[in-house]
Amino acid sequence: MEYSFKIQFGDTDPAGIVYYPNYYRWMDNATHELFNTINYPTRSLKEKNIVTPLLEANCVFKSPGYYHHTITIQTDVEYVKSKVFKLRHTFYDNDTLLAEGYEVRAWVSIENEQLKATTIPDDIRTELEKLIKVNV
Amino acid sequence: MEYSFKIQFGDTDPAGIVYYPNYYRWMDNATHELFNTINYPTRSLKEKNIVTPLLEANCVFKSPGYYHHTITIQTDVEYVKSKVFKLRHTFYDNDTLLAEGYEVRAWVSIENEQLKATTIPDDIRTELEKLIKVNV
Amino acid sequence: MEYSFKIQFGDTDPAGIVYYPNYYRWMDNATHELFNTINYPTRSLKEKNIVTPLLEANCVFKSPGYYHHTITIQTDVEYVKSKVFKLRHTFYDNDTLLAEGYEVRAWVSIENEQLKATTIPDDIRTELEKLIKVNV
Amino acid sequence: MEYSFKIQFGDTDPAGIVYYPNYYRWMDNATHELFNTINYPTRSLKEKNIVTPLLEANCVFKSPGYYHHTITIQTDVEYVKSKVFKLRHTFYDNDTLLAEGYEVRAWVSIENEQLKATTIPDDIRTELEKLIKVNV
Repeated sequence: MEYSFKIQFGDTDPAGIVYYPNYYRWMDNATHELFNTINYPTRSLKEKNIVTPLLEANCVFKSPGYYHHTITIQTDVEYVKSKVFKLRHTFYDNDTLLAEGYEVRAWVSIENEQLKATTIPDDIRTELEKLIKVNV
Repeated sequence: MEYSFKIQFGDTDPAGIVYYPNYYRWMDNATHELFNTINYPTRSLKEKNIVTPLLEANCVFKSPGYYHHTITIQTDVEYVKSKVFKLRHTFYDNDTLLAEGYEVRAWVSIENEQLKATTIPDDIRTELEKLIKVNV
Repeated sequence: MEYSFKIQFGDTDPAGIVYYPNYYRWMDNATHELFNTINYPTRSLKEKNIVTPLLEANCVFKSPGYYHHTITIQTDVEYVKSKVFKLRHTFYDNDTLLAEGYEVRAWVSIENEQLKATTIPDDIRTELEKLIKVNV
Repeated sequence: MEYSFKIQFGDTDPAGIVYYPNYYRWMDNATHELFNTINYPTRSLKEKNIVTPLLEANCVFKSPGYYHHTITIQTDVEYVKSKVFKLRHTFYDNDTLLAEGYEVRAWVSIENEQLKATTIPDDIRTELEKLIKVNV
């Protein structure tokens, strides 16, 4: 899945480059976009008290991002386990690789702010697994 | 080094827990705090066109953070190489481990938004190395 | 009520001064702090499904804020009506007036993301009215 | 000028609605978009050390914003004075009016973090004045 957007003035810092925590915000946005793409918008999941909190998030930064440049994020699924899945997010500014990140997320039901890991439903597993990138 | 602050309402998401990119913002804050502690405030470094952009940042999330709870971050130096250093940040809510993160940062001079890796000065290296945690 | 904190690197923009939407975030933080002060933390209100969404927020900016300077916010109550109250927030960097803002907020019960204005309870009204600043 | 974007999960708060300081971030984004539209991108202004810091910003909130809804901002110029201009931003979610805001901004040259109000150049004044909304 590809997701593009423009870096905003407010996303950059006194050094004139992207303030790095924004890359994690953008990974989160891309993940929500991915669930839209497979027709399970997280907004509808939230209504069923399902959220996908992070177990781990990592990003390796390759080139600085500048404001009003357009970023494209390529998001792939790396694996889908019973209650956990992993996404890879790669950030480009045209041909320039900006950053490579990943998120490990749990499938969690939430009630009164109490979180409990739950099995990923089969229909969602099937859709996520379609997005696993096969390297030939 | 320890650094404490209160989670704010605006740091949390519709699930009632910390929106995860904030942990990276807090690691960044803790790093600036660390440079204050060793009397090389990043504000004065910035005036000499020195910044410390990220090469990599990682965080493993152990327990959700709730708003108006107080977080304490313990920050240690893991290593100081020629132009690169690594910090470990551990987040606690009282005795509860919330998250364990690290940042790998470069020592960089910046001119007209052009970044160039530079050798970490000896006096700063000395101060940073004092903060390496020795496990007995 | 006074509330102090340090401007962070990430709060500033490529011009080296505070990115202005942060002033509204800080007004929000100060409002939550005010409810802590009168022993009605918004966290406990939220558990009773009471929130205080904004009807209006304004800020007039007098001097730029610089990072790692300490800001003090003075917060006063201007009025408490049946279902609406107004707070004034004044921002100082030592003796320098940085900004003067206000928030008009409603007292609202929330259920399934539906908001409904509700009468401010007498005990809370009493506490808020104690914070009205009397000019002599 | 119209500018549309999607509300993100991270833009919302524990009440499930937009965390209000984001409206000011979006007004800022819309202002940068407006300067793109008239072919004076703020990025090129910044390279000439021109920035447009806020003198005042106001927003009146009419309806809550929900995540993954698309917001459209209509931005008009209200006036252009010698060194100051005012923009009106109106936020819609389809036909629902979400918020009405304005920004009063100065035309400022910046050198070493020192800000100085400067006369708005004629060519930019001309372009901005074309965006004044005439009510018949």
